[in-house]
Amino acid sequence: MPGETALEYLRNAWYAAAAEAEITRTPLRRMLLDTPVVLFRSLDGNPVALQDRCAHRFAPLSRGTLLGDELQCGYHGLRYDRGGRCVHNPHGPRIPAHADIRAYPLASRYGFIWLWPGDPALADAALLPDLSPFDPRPGYRTQWGYLRIDAHYQLVIDNLLDLSHVEYLHPAFASGGAIGNTRHEVIEADGVVHANRWKPGCTVSPLLGRCWGRPDAIGDARSCIRWHPPCTLFLDVGATETGADPGDGVTLSFLHLPTPESGTRTHYFWAATRSHSPDDDELTGWIQATTERAFMLEDEPMIEAQQDNLGPGADMASLHPVYLAPDLAPVKARRILARLIEAERGAQPAGIR
Amino acid sequence: MPGETALEYLRNAWYAAAAEAEITRTPLRRMLLDTPVVLFRSLDGNPVALQDRCAHRFAPLSRGTLLGDELQCGYHGLRYDRGGRCVHNPHGPRIPAHADIRAYPLASRYGFIWLWPGDPALADAALLPDLSPFDPRPGYRTQWGYLRIDAHYQLVIDNLLDLSHVEYLHPAFASGGAIGNTRHEVIEADGVVHANRWKPGCTVSPLLGRCWGRPDAIGDARSCIRWHPPCTLFLDVGATETGADPGDGVTLSFLHLPTPESGTRTHYFWAATRSHSPDDDELTGWIQATTERAFMLEDEPMIEAQQDNLGPGADMASLHPVYLAPDLAPVKARRILARLIEAERGAQPAGIR
Amino acid sequence: MPGETALEYLRNAWYAAAAEAEITRTPLRRMLLDTPVVLFRSLDGNPVALQDRCAHRFAPLSRGTLLGDELQCGYHGLRYDRGGRCVHNPHGPRIPAHADIRAYPLASRYGFIWLWPGDPALADAALLPDLSPFDPRPGYRTQWGYLRIDAHYQLVIDNLLDLSHVEYLHPAFASGGAIGNTRHEVIEADGVVHANRWKPGCTVSPLLGRCWGRPDAIGDARSCIRWHPPCTLFLDVGATETGADPGDGVTLSFLHLPTPESGTRTHYFWAATRSHSPDDDELTGWIQATTERAFMLEDEPMIEAQQDNLGPGADMASLHPVYLAPDLAPVKARRILARLIEAERGAQPAGIR
Repeated sequence: MPGETALEYLRNAWYAAAAEAEITRTPLRRMLLDTPVVLFRSLDGNPVALQDRCAHRFAPLSRGTLLGDELQCGYHGLRYDRGGRCVHNPHGPRIPAHADIRAYPLASRYGFIWLWPGDPALADAALLPDLSPFDPRPGYRTQWGYLRIDAHYQLVIDNLLDLSHVEYLHPAFASGGAIGNTRHEVIEADGVVHANRWKPGCTVSPLLGRCWGRPDAIGDARSCIRWHPPCTLFLDVGATETGADPGDGVTLSFLHLPTPESGTRTHYFWAATRSHSPDDDELTGWIQATTERAFMLEDEPMIEAQQDNLGPGADMASLHPVYLAPDLAPVKARRILARLIEAERGAQPAGIR
Repeated sequence: MPGETALEYLRNAWYAAAAEAEITRTPLRRMLLDTPVVLFRSLDGNPVALQDRCAHRFAPLSRGTLLGDELQCGYHGLRYDRGGRCVHNPHGPRIPAHADIRAYPLASRYGFIWLWPGDPALADAALLPDLSPFDPRPGYRTQWGYLRIDAHYQLVIDNLLDLSHVEYLHPAFASGGAIGNTRHEVIEADGVVHANRWKPGCTVSPLLGRCWGRPDAIGDARSCIRWHPPCTLFLDVGATETGADPGDGVTLSFLHLPTPESGTRTHYFWAATRSHSPDDDELTGWIQATTERAFMLEDEPMIEAQQDNLGPGADMASLHPVYLAPDLAPVKARRILARLIEAERGAQPAGIR
Repeated sequence: MPGETALEYLRNAWYAAAAEAEITRTPLRRMLLDTPVVLFRSLDGNPVALQDRCAHRFAPLSRGTLLGDELQCGYHGLRYDRGGRCVHNPHGPRIPAHADIRAYPLASRYGFIWLWPGDPALADAALLPDLSPFDPRPGYRTQWGYLRIDAHYQLVIDNLLDLSHVEYLHPAFASGGAIGNTRHEVIEADGVVHANRWKPGCTVSPLLGRCWGRPDAIGDARSCIRWHPPCTLFLDVGATETGADPGDGVTLSFLHLPTPESGTRTHYFWAATRSHSPDDDELTGWIQATTERAFMLEDEPMIEAQQDNLGPGADMASLHPVYLAPDLAPVKARRILARLIEAERGAQPAGIR
């Protein structure tokens, strides 16, 4: 089956690079798509991303000093402005030619800093998916987290687009009686893949039960996730009284943003937002602890063990996996992404990449 | 000199996979010959070994759950029986084709679980070497141990088949006055290599002296080891009064089972059995501590340092070693094993390996 | 620009292998130029260096025992003399042919043991550079240090031959007001590269100020470093009253000896000597702590981060660096060394290397 391999990255796309709060006046080095990037905030509060490699002797600029909005290399003192232009050479009267470094377009949205690794001329914040529940809204409580997974990002996307695994791997997220009683729906529309799981008449999960204030309630539960290429996933989990309208019950929305660090490592940013008991700090803390336990102690070891069994990369296809019904969404996503990467490769002049 | 390289494994052979006590109702993952294997005990007490890689998304089944005699994948819930047959697919009405995984023939004998990585049709417990001193016997005390060596298993076999190293590396096992006073005998018979060292009129080793209850006794000591391909070694060490019959003195028998984990790592199982003072727990503890010290603090660092000096693999021949008299047995074993591997490779249809 | 790559080592040259005090009657294993070497002192006090790999089964001799001036292998007992000749085989009546191992010419000078990895017939202590300030002298205090850098040794030489980095990386070594007020002079003479930095009318560095007993003094400071191929650097830092003769002020001399362990690791030996307050132990301790902080907490992470950004090796040229004025000295040194390596490669029969 094609579409199982992703050895290249899609370049002309937005990737989550950091949570808003991570970017400060202290330069931060982060490997993104095998490339070292330094992130900081300029004096006006806007985030800046430059290649984290001085043009001179290739020292990381993240080890340097921010002087106003200029980043000075900590090794020999070249200075760069927010656009990556070399603006100061302390060792001679002239700025040498070709001393500029790459600056990356950024967008600040939904609590995250998004980076565009491809052609800057094509970067457009309007291309960000609509994740508006993560825009600041009164009456909502939003929380964030981060983990790092030693596996290819496609394995993380596979994990999320097939949420049948929740019933086996995550006791706190599992609905009692859902296995064998779930309607599974996969929709592909405009390059976005939706995977919806409807679980009528089940015992709602500990997570939903606690948010709802009704532990062990019987109701109709659902988990509806959608994937926007390359690495953005929006998940809505919720429950209502049996037969009631989805709007009536409890809803918890998650963002999952698995950004490739390299072919074998993934930055995994997440956020959760809810309108139920937004001021209940104990509930917020419990959601944080429960989610971190699930992601770091249940998902992470499983995905890393899966990667170990696969060997480097994520080339499932060559191992001839058995496909089950819930694989439809991850396989669609892999195919779409493979096609986008192939199209980009065909379209780009070789020099740009 | 040929026979120095073993880049392939002999497949149609028994390898120690675990000590009996290691295999329980909790699935155990173990890498054997570069292959992940999951081991557990079925309800009737029999050991089971399956490929530790689900046919679906390649998650390790050892992270799953044992339901009766069925092993359920911890990621998405496929279930396998003891034969590796997929017997349950919770996501659809049918078991998909090609969802079975490999099951490995096992034999329980001599305190260990033996695994046959090759053609199951050829697996026959009668092919196990005769190691009957390690069958349960009244009046004997048997003890076990395990270590892991970051080196090719051939280096461990070399170590054991040339026990001249004992006099240099292992003070607790060395006989006083044995160097230069040892008769060394190598016999090859029916594909088994015997290396016997006869040490008349020496001070017996601390190990034998303590087992015998006669520390620093002068007597005739011996160490007789034999190697059965690929990875089974049986060692008899003993001492008698000078000139007496071997049956009269003290005997300690060892099993050494260096099973390849990969080309650079070895599972090293061992056992020891004796009839002298079988109920002396203090002696048993002292033998355990002394043997573990010798194997883990003396052999292991030396063999690993030797591997470092060789680089990856164990291809001695390309480095043109100097051959001494005691190398005869390890060289014979390397040749026999190389021939067996070559014969197997010639005989097997390519698809089976 | 050529001369940026050094994938080979210069063989016919002296390399610092150890500080004098490191070599004792306890054999020391050290990897030098990708080769394992064992170093010890013979009974007459002279240092000995042999290949750290027994000719028999390639065990490291550093795990063996020194019997008089013979090193006995700790695995099976072969013995070698100071010249690497196998002089004892406990397992037979004869020493086997080809059982000798390599011995390396050594020179003891300037507080270090120097090793010649190339053709022993060409080894000549007279080829050592003149570093006479590090000969024992009355009225001087000399101190030593060692660190290990996970980077190619050329990056360490680059670091030292471009001391403009001091003003950015090392607060304790930086002169106030020196940036933009420094005369930089590069001289190449007889294959030696000199890089001198003259800093008139500046606030002397904390290091010089404290040695001089005049913290924050205004004066003429200088740092004059020279590089002898392949890996010897001699640095003189000093200060005088403004306009005075260099001999009048304070001088601190450093030896920097970055010896390649492998293509990605460097042994970095250093020494410092001074005539100011030679008996002031508190000052000596402060210099030690300050220097170790600068080298281990400032240089080492920067050079290792630079190596990370370069990837394995130190092939700057392929990344098209921007060259600034202070790069002249390191580039000259890289070119000289590349030419020497190339000449040696052309001159040597292939078998010797």
